Amino acid sequence: MDAPVNLAAAFATFDDHWAPRIVARYNGNEVRIVKVAGEFLWHAHADTDDLFLVLDGVLDIELRDRTVTLRPGELYVVPRGVEHRPVARHGEVRMINIEPAGTDNVGDGSPQRRPVEVAAPPA
Amino acid sequence: MDAPVNLAAAFATFDDHWAPRIVARYNGNEVRIVKVAGEFLWHAHADTDDLFLVLDGVLDIELRDRTVTLRPGELYVVPRGVEHRPVARHGEVRMINIEPAGTDNVGDGSPQRRPVEVAAPPA
Repeated sequence: MDAPVNLAAAFATFDDHWAPRIVARYNGNEVRIVKVAGEFLWHAHADTDDLFLVLDGVLDIELRDRTVTLRPGELYVVPRGVEHRPVARHGEVRMINIEPAGTDNVGDGSPQRRPVEVAAPPA
Repeated sequence: MDAPVNLAAAFATFDDHWAPRIVARYNGNEVRIVKVAGEFLWHAHADTDDLFLVLDGVLDIELRDRTVTLRPGELYVVPRGVEHRPVARHGEVRMINIEPAGTDNVGDGSPQRRPVEVAAPPA
């Protein structure tokens, strides 16, 4: 990468929810930013942990036996194979996810759930 | 991990510089937080990229041909093998680094440069 990624500028390039954008790559992983609101699907990733770092808003990560709540500046890693459902009950959440390149959102291989590159931020 | 990591609480558990603390693990990588000030050493990691996300302060990542400056909310990945020197010229910087488990700070295998676990944050 030539220049640093300004996360605020990258977030300003899109408005859709549950549609991650790739902002950087690290050792075969994708660093993704995503805006979410409401409920996502129950899912698990058989082969990879799933890192969440919340930047704005409050995210509930529902597990089958409890709920982990993330506020801004809080980080959680869902271990591989663990079923979870991210839910943003209180307005929009902005967060960073890191997952191996090629990991789809819901662990079922759906190509339409693949993240796309972030657009070039406005100059 | 049982509970989310609150980054502010984790930063409050230490004051030393260039001494990363491990706050989470992700697919064989360590998510580390670190406070830095002043100049570090020129070094490269032959086998791994090096991810920097600045949370507070201004960090210059000097490369041999240019300097990449990171402000809060800015992220940069130094590719593997690329010589770099992190420098915090304007006071303390707080940042997240992600590196494979076992990677030392300066790429020379020095055991004394291995990050340690973060202490349990105050309740």
